[in-house]
Amino acid sequence: MNSLSKLLSIVENIYDQMKRGEIPEIKLTTRTKQNIEFKESSEVWVYGDKKSVRSAKSVKGAYQLLRMVYVIGFLKEQLSQNRSSTLRELYYISENWGIAKFNEQMESDRLIEDLEILTGLQRESFNVRPEEDGATVFGDIKIREKTRRGERVIHCQDDVGEAGYQIPTNVDNIEFLECNADFVIAIETGGMRDRLVENGFDEDYNAIIVHLKGQPARSTRRLLRRLNTELGLPVVVFTDGDPWSYRIYASVAYGSIKSAHLSEYLATPSAMFVGIRPSDILKYKLPSDKLTDEDIKALNAILSDPRFDSDFWRREIKLQLELGRKSEQQALAKYGLSFVTDVYLPERLTELGILKR
Amino acid sequence: MNSLSKLLSIVENIYDQMKRGEIPEIKLTTRTKQNIEFKESSEVWVYGDKKSVRSAKSVKGAYQLLRMVYVIGFLKEQLSQNRSSTLRELYYISENWGIAKFNEQMESDRLIEDLEILTGLQRESFNVRPEEDGATVFGDIKIREKTRRGERVIHCQDDVGEAGYQIPTNVDNIEFLECNADFVIAIETGGMRDRLVENGFDEDYNAIIVHLKGQPARSTRRLLRRLNTELGLPVVVFTDGDPWSYRIYASVAYGSIKSAHLSEYLATPSAMFVGIRPSDILKYKLPSDKLTDEDIKALNAILSDPRFDSDFWRREIKLQLELGRKSEQQALAKYGLSFVTDVYLPERLTELGILKR
Repeated sequence: MNSLSKLLSIVENIYDQMKRGEIPEIKLTTRTKQNIEFKESSEVWVYGDKKSVRSAKSVKGAYQLLRMVYVIGFLKEQLSQNRSSTLRELYYISENWGIAKFNEQMESDRLIEDLEILTGLQRESFNVRPEEDGATVFGDIKIREKTRRGERVIHCQDDVGEAGYQIPTNVDNIEFLECNADFVIAIETGGMRDRLVENGFDEDYNAIIVHLKGQPARSTRRLLRRLNTELGLPVVVFTDGDPWSYRIYASVAYGSIKSAHLSEYLATPSAMFVGIRPSDILKYKLPSDKLTDEDIKALNAILSDPRFDSDFWRREIKLQLELGRKSEQQALAKYGLSFVTDVYLPERLTELGILKR
Repeated sequence: MNSLSKLLSIVENIYDQMKRGEIPEIKLTTRTKQNIEFKESSEVWVYGDKKSVRSAKSVKGAYQLLRMVYVIGFLKEQLSQNRSSTLRELYYISENWGIAKFNEQMESDRLIEDLEILTGLQRESFNVRPEEDGATVFGDIKIREKTRRGERVIHCQDDVGEAGYQIPTNVDNIEFLECNADFVIAIETGGMRDRLVENGFDEDYNAIIVHLKGQPARSTRRLLRRLNTELGLPVVVFTDGDPWSYRIYASVAYGSIKSAHLSEYLATPSAMFVGIRPSDILKYKLPSDKLTDEDIKALNAILSDPRFDSDFWRREIKLQLELGRKSEQQALAKYGLSFVTDVYLPERLTELGILKR
């Protein structure tokens, strides 16, 4: 069954209920922290069995079903014309839908998530996409991207400028043709990404450098998973040493709560953390900043987050709360511009078994 | 005189003053709105003649001179090794400079600006750069980029993925080899940039599509200026309809107050505005949002900003304050996904004489 048929079957179901004289309703997975569970077979966090019902019995529910029908109508049109739209455009397009119009973009974004869950597809299958986010790849890998203008074959060192190959919104249009790298290093900040490129880390250590651009977009996480599962490359995640950065790592490795229905597409459970550890602040006497109240709250939340339930994280988070400090990856520049590639990363990657002694 | 000699002459000057038994000082252009003036010959806003003095007479001034000497020492090292660093790294590198250490990055950023003004160079000449910002180019232009790994020749339609060619931090490493486009359209949001690429606007109208990514980085503005002055391409700027977006246009066209010493490198005085006008909210019945208090304040500030001293802007800003509304470029999607490329932009560009009837 293709994407369109799956979408249409939702509408048919509503239609059939009405035809039978029933008040139409739809059952949807509940998307909360309470309904997240660990799936042993794929080692990722996915939604559990809790369902909530959207029924036309209530005015609110009726509106939701009406909007869903309108959105599916729009997507049908879009798919048949082979066009695509951004989440923001979809929100504006509803302007002409009378009472079915969305009041804010959050509503239309959420409805697209509903459709993902109902169909088991990603929004890319509906040709709905977010904005480009500027994340990039640099390293010894040759890819083929299917674009609207035809296919493009690009080697991510030889055929790109210093800024690298920019990850498109739909990563499933990429095919991996040839890869001579040994592992992937995914980096939080642009400054550090540029440092590794300038220092030739990709060549010296045979690495693919991926820039996460902060909290990574779905496309970036999907690409990391594909590099890991299809090419068998280990993935390491190099971030700052604060709670927000640990969450970046967690969303790469275990999936995020917001998109747990897609964890099996997006998460890389074997991804390893090489970001700044609270113990590094002591070990390397790194320049650091005081934790803010929000940082402390976020660290405490991590202590009860099932994704961080390990000795390593408990020890490090507790240490950080004691120190009351956080540190950035660029703080390694205290020891000069080469310290991160000559000392810090080789040590960490050897410990993790990525580099052999 | 090369960059290094220019930097060293600053230190020599300090040294000479001390040798003569004088308390060393440095005279620097004052960087405020009050010291901005219009330069007729190049049609951009530049700093005026007001100077302030940094003298070692005060403890604060002495610190500033000390830091400057340290920074120049570091840059000397960096230039001689052909390395580069980010503004953030420079801040951390100062960690080992004892009392000359910076307390926050704003101080080191500002010192680099001081050096730009004293030497008349851009920070790229010192190999100091910001983070990549992810802005891109898409269109019928072939460039050659000088990278650390050798030269790369890239056609910005045929040799790139759908996300386009990412603008490197140092645009002066780019050479334009061949260009068949008629004009450049610089776009504020990624969603609209993607829309124009999907709709084939670059092919249908022979345009180069540049993504500004919000307030454009220096590198993006420098590229627009080079496309304008070296290739003679008209530049139009397509933004949302709110005061922050008008400022984006102004920084492309007239330069920004923060980098007025570089206006002649960065500004494109002939750049034209094709962003959403307050009158478009009425003309096209666009979905709109209420102005916030900050919006209203910013609009009033624009009324007294010398860069916006024209009938067009006064009329539109006043209208916007009356309407109390603002609108986004993606709001044009109200009329479907092709309205912007089939109707809105062709109308506006014909009015401006960019497209011939």
